[in-house]
Amino acid sequence: MANNTITAPKGFLATGLHCGVKKSGKFDLALIVCPTGAKAAAVFTTNKVVSAAVQVCKKHVKSASISAVVVNSGNANTCTGQTGIKNAIQMCSETAHSLSKVWDARLLRFARNDKKYAIRNTQYAAREVLIASTGIIGKQLPIKKITAGISKAAAKLSASSKAGLDFAEAIMTTDTKPKQAVRRFEISGAKVTIAGAVKGAGMIAPNMATTLCFITTDAAITQPLLAKALKAAIGNSLNRLTVDGHQSTNDTAIILASGLAGNRPIVSQCPRYKRFANALAEVCGDLASQMAFDAEGATRMFKVVVKGAATKADAARACRAIADYPLVKCAVNGGDPNWGRIICAVGSAGVKLNPNKLSCKLGPITVFKNGTPRKFDAKKASKVISQTEHTITVDLGAGRASDFCYGCDLSKDYITINAESTLKTRN
Amino acid sequence: MANNTITAPKGFLATGLHCGVKKSGKFDLALIVCPTGAKAAAVFTTNKVVSAAVQVCKKHVKSASISAVVVNSGNANTCTGQTGIKNAIQMCSETAHSLSKVWDARLLRFARNDKKYAIRNTQYAAREVLIASTGIIGKQLPIKKITAGISKAAAKLSASSKAGLDFAEAIMTTDTKPKQAVRRFEISGAKVTIAGAVKGAGMIAPNMATTLCFITTDAAITQPLLAKALKAAIGNSLNRLTVDGHQSTNDTAIILASGLAGNRPIVSQCPRYKRFANALAEVCGDLASQMAFDAEGATRMFKVVVKGAATKADAARACRAIADYPLVKCAVNGGDPNWGRIICAVGSAGVKLNPNKLSCKLGPITVFKNGTPRKFDAKKASKVISQTEHTITVDLGAGRASDFCYGCDLSKDYITINAESTLKTRN
Repeated sequence: MANNTITAPKGFLATGLHCGVKKSGKFDLALIVCPTGAKAAAVFTTNKVVSAAVQVCKKHVKSASISAVVVNSGNANTCTGQTGIKNAIQMCSETAHSLSKVWDARLLRFARNDKKYAIRNTQYAAREVLIASTGIIGKQLPIKKITAGISKAAAKLSASSKAGLDFAEAIMTTDTKPKQAVRRFEISGAKVTIAGAVKGAGMIAPNMATTLCFITTDAAITQPLLAKALKAAIGNSLNRLTVDGHQSTNDTAIILASGLAGNRPIVSQCPRYKRFANALAEVCGDLASQMAFDAEGATRMFKVVVKGAATKADAARACRAIADYPLVKCAVNGGDPNWGRIICAVGSAGVKLNPNKLSCKLGPITVFKNGTPRKFDAKKASKVISQTEHTITVDLGAGRASDFCYGCDLSKDYITINAESTLKTRN
Repeated sequence: MANNTITAPKGFLATGLHCGVKKSGKFDLALIVCPTGAKAAAVFTTNKVVSAAVQVCKKHVKSASISAVVVNSGNANTCTGQTGIKNAIQMCSETAHSLSKVWDARLLRFARNDKKYAIRNTQYAAREVLIASTGIIGKQLPIKKITAGISKAAAKLSASSKAGLDFAEAIMTTDTKPKQAVRRFEISGAKVTIAGAVKGAGMIAPNMATTLCFITTDAAITQPLLAKALKAAIGNSLNRLTVDGHQSTNDTAIILASGLAGNRPIVSQCPRYKRFANALAEVCGDLASQMAFDAEGATRMFKVVVKGAATKADAARACRAIADYPLVKCAVNGGDPNWGRIICAVGSAGVKLNPNKLSCKLGPITVFKNGTPRKFDAKKASKVISQTEHTITVDLGAGRASDFCYGCDLSKDYITINAESTLKTRN
């Protein structure tokens, strides 16, 4: 069976295990390693309160070569002051130290399988390790458990699909299932693979709607183009998704490129770049769709399209106002074609609109046109919005700009999931 | 028993009845009448999509004297185009017409009870009638049922407390109970009364968080001071309340002053004005508190205080971000002292903050101080936020401005109430 996990691209090892952060005994520590060193790019939350992990990762991602990504779930290492920063750095240095220890044994063997690539220095540095954390805010990491776990994880690294799946499971919090995507394509006759794993089910909003997203590829590509492609792909996928209108303090998307595919390197915005960027966008789109369906308590997702806006920013704001509006989300949950709530959300979005040209469609059904309600079959409209996927279209009648985003319904399960978390275990 | 309804102040008649808008048979038409003519002031929604009722009311409130307020519930008359405007005007003209018809019979008798005030012209004009509508958006009013109802209502008008309660019931939609408040006080030896009735349980957000609010008083006061006092009272009460972060298309607060109390008229910002303004603020605060407790599905309310903000606007924005954040609302619902969600909400509010000075308290318990988590008794903290009322305090560490607002928890009942409304009856 094909490996459809983040270890599918050449040059990557991974693992996931339980180190003791989560009381449930579920996996809570994850590791990706690129023994030959990878080019890396990342995008981060724009929340003004950011995890210690994000603060450290932002510095490390500037390194010319990245060897590993270490991730813990169950604790966000956010609002943890200087101790939090110290712990995040320690996670990176422990990872580098553990990798240096196991280098001679398995990693060297692994690296030698790709003989045409120079085997790098066997001493890993902490600044070559990226880091991400997710889970509860405001508690210090159980750092001893984590460093012991990192040591174990380094010894467990593998390029198998089982190892990739373990990684995808170890980054989960309230996710009900691991979310992975892969695309295989050719560039200049060489087989190139892009694979991703993502976690996130709540605290998801446009502008870095990822929570945590890890992508590996074996494409040979320059760092600036890698960063450009990541930003574009996230912008049209994960950044378009809103579950509860708030971005987390830990949102991080990282891409690592090992360069081992043997393709003619992508050094400009040529057709090769476009093929790579398209495939990356597909991977991100696939992951975003899985996140929407696994959103906390969600039973269905919907796309919001806003047209006729005065500016692109207005269109984006109106999209989000609709997708985030609790009454719209409840109506979708109940299959209720109550389009007045959509218009109400738009009206309070603070965007320019022409009340006499304002229009709205539920799927293909026009329910409101030029400021006047249209007669429509309520049962048919109910069927449309009861589908697992449908589109809400609004025309503001104020210009020519448009935008879109993805939302999901609000169900009682969202409240069940979020009403009792820290006193019990939120893992 | 004292009359604690909107007919308590001298000079007001009211009624409420079922005219056929609501399928449930509940009251759906309400009328307040001031036969001697009242000074009036109003504040309206700032939503860019506004009800036909609001559009008409905004014009009529400029009249020097107001005779009546007509209200229907069950249908918002919003997104209803020109037909909607025509229907709103017809509601006003039918009210004026019906009052003119019944004038000689009962209204004249009523007016004569206050002999010292000139009995006004018995012909009412449509522009002297204010109007409000609430209910589903996007459906045309059943105008014939409503005009027939107005005719009946005019014949039923009374100054009894039963009539006032009927009014308060007839303006309800998803409210579980009528909400009324009254204050009696003296100005220059004369007894003055202010009474109010309010409806609203969802679609409530700061900036005109009223849905519909009607206040009557017999104070003698100039129109500009009446408007000033209303704006101030709403600003510190109903405008501070957020249930689901969205303002409706129909929000309207109206105050009518009959001037029959016999007080030395309030013509400047003297101590008499202050006494009046304070009492009005108390009435509005009382109504806001009743709304919070009756918010759709709410089991408890909380006050959010934000201090240390760079600007007042930042403080207000941060307050609202916290009170509107679904994860905070769920945590309050579950009695979960998960303060990290509060900090996460603040971080994404787009306000200036100092991460190293950021602090948070749940009731009296400091959980986060100067960017570092504090050890606290989670069970005690859980008890604090499980109370029917508690305060969340956040210090942004970025300045000296502060603000506050009121929010409520998010429960499964909110979804039950809002997931199935238009296909069944939302009355």
